[in-house]
Amino acid sequence: MQIHPMWATYPDLQPELQATLELIQQQIKTDNQPVNAAILDLINAGGKLLRPAYCLLFSQFKPTDRSKMIALAAAIETLHTATLIHDDVIDQSPIRRGVTTIQTQFDLPTAVYAGDYLFVVCFQLLSNYASSLRSVQQDGKSMADILNGELAQMATRYHLDMTIDQYLKQVSGKTGQLFALSSFIGAYESGQSLRFSRNSEKIGLNIGIAFQLLDDILDYTSNTDTIGKPVHNDMRQGVYSAPLIFGMNQDPQIKVLLQKQTAMTDAETAEVVARVHAAGGVDQARDMAAEYTNKALKAIDKLPDMPARQTLHQLTAALLNRNV
Amino acid sequence: MQIHPMWATYPDLQPELQATLELIQQQIKTDNQPVNAAILDLINAGGKLLRPAYCLLFSQFKPTDRSKMIALAAAIETLHTATLIHDDVIDQSPIRRGVTTIQTQFDLPTAVYAGDYLFVVCFQLLSNYASSLRSVQQDGKSMADILNGELAQMATRYHLDMTIDQYLKQVSGKTGQLFALSSFIGAYESGQSLRFSRNSEKIGLNIGIAFQLLDDILDYTSNTDTIGKPVHNDMRQGVYSAPLIFGMNQDPQIKVLLQKQTAMTDAETAEVVARVHAAGGVDQARDMAAEYTNKALKAIDKLPDMPARQTLHQLTAALLNRNV
Repeated sequence: MQIHPMWATYPDLQPELQATLELIQQQIKTDNQPVNAAILDLINAGGKLLRPAYCLLFSQFKPTDRSKMIALAAAIETLHTATLIHDDVIDQSPIRRGVTTIQTQFDLPTAVYAGDYLFVVCFQLLSNYASSLRSVQQDGKSMADILNGELAQMATRYHLDMTIDQYLKQVSGKTGQLFALSSFIGAYESGQSLRFSRNSEKIGLNIGIAFQLLDDILDYTSNTDTIGKPVHNDMRQGVYSAPLIFGMNQDPQIKVLLQKQTAMTDAETAEVVARVHAAGGVDQARDMAAEYTNKALKAIDKLPDMPARQTLHQLTAALLNRNV
Repeated sequence: MQIHPMWATYPDLQPELQATLELIQQQIKTDNQPVNAAILDLINAGGKLLRPAYCLLFSQFKPTDRSKMIALAAAIETLHTATLIHDDVIDQSPIRRGVTTIQTQFDLPTAVYAGDYLFVVCFQLLSNYASSLRSVQQDGKSMADILNGELAQMATRYHLDMTIDQYLKQVSGKTGQLFALSSFIGAYESGQSLRFSRNSEKIGLNIGIAFQLLDDILDYTSNTDTIGKPVHNDMRQGVYSAPLIFGMNQDPQIKVLLQKQTAMTDAETAEVVARVHAAGGVDQARDMAAEYTNKALKAIDKLPDMPARQTLHQLTAALLNRNV
């Protein structure tokens, strides 16, 4: 199994990410073959491994035991995969990364347990490879924030008065925290000071927020085939993201259309998308993503002048320009 | 909220268990009110807090920081509650502890996230209060064993050739490991040697296996009102427990009836139950429970002569004679 072709342009990172993926695959060994197969299918469907990439990059400013850092990067990606599986259960999403989701291909119990199992694998990797309880504590805090972001999102479904501040708070939980955690653990476990590690954490948080904004923008500018999951699913499920919130603020007709909630027709969904574009919702969201990315880039440029800094800059800048 | 009345006869344990319950309640603070309410409902429905009880008891052989031990006991019960919630999702069980389950009262997403949230709370309590990474590692190992027990159980559903050895292996995973973990952490975190802690772990494992055997026996000797959950649910779901496996070995007609799987009528379920009793399946399972209890009691009696030893003996002996 090969990692995503995008990493060919990052030779400092590619072999370690390949090793991370292989380590994850080795960890998947339950007493239930369908569960193993379901998890491996998802892992092999080619996630971009961005979170482990940031963990590894922030650990490259100091010479350190690389196999330990790879194990911690694997822990992070395992946690990410666990949240994806449970999110798909909750959203009843039929596809992910272009392959059918676990609860569609197998069944609900398999999906719930598969997610639980990956939480446990994360927990084991972390407790076996981290050098200090502080990293484990940080992981616990991040997990709580991630879940709280998801729960807050669930609590505000179909809220037509949802604000961009609420959105940002949820996003920094559900996506930002995992990028923040990856960056913190990379730095801290490679032996950096708490100050350096907290700075890395902040950079990771801004990257994560920008990343989610881009994801939400792509939902308005791509089709299902390109991004490997159904578009406009969030809107139908009442999860209102930045482009839509900005759009609603300009065009009151959007709220009228959204009031039909799950009963919206495909034509009405298409009309909302068109109106969001016309109202500048997508552009405003793109500006906001650029803002968070630039904040991260500025902080990255102040890091010690080492190859990892350049790679961090290159990768982070590329994320803003991605189209998948 | 008061803990279960059974603890009135254990004055050395009652106040600490009360404090454990209160600490758990304080931890439940998500940004989603229905999820908080759902979790608190289940917690307040009065679980017996047996796992934290063993954690606390095994920590009472040495003077130690009691608030730390209470936090670790709370971590254990939180993990237990998380597994109950996800098990109910998977079994689509309508009631638990006499109250409607979370996915019945609320919905599936609430139940999945509620379970995930409690895993995270467990993780946080453990990483904040444990003195060593070893306890966290032990927790990771136990969680993997618990999940593997569940997964193995899922993989052998409706297997009419299921053996008692397979059953015991699954049970030592899904139930035994959490009692084993509680006992280990209680001992180890109170400053006992690894040897003492491993011995405590083994005692806990045998208690857990006996406890599950009793639970499975009660499924054949009680009714829904008494035990607060539907009886014979396991049989209908293809989860074959000790009384049924022993019964099948004696009376081939039982297998014929079970072949209808989910299509079994209530009359047929009742006939299986009657045949299991007549074939001595319940008696054999009871003998096996006594065997594991006695193994645990023997080892308890060899512990240092302190009040905790007496309480451990009293509690463990009482578990074998429980009717709820």
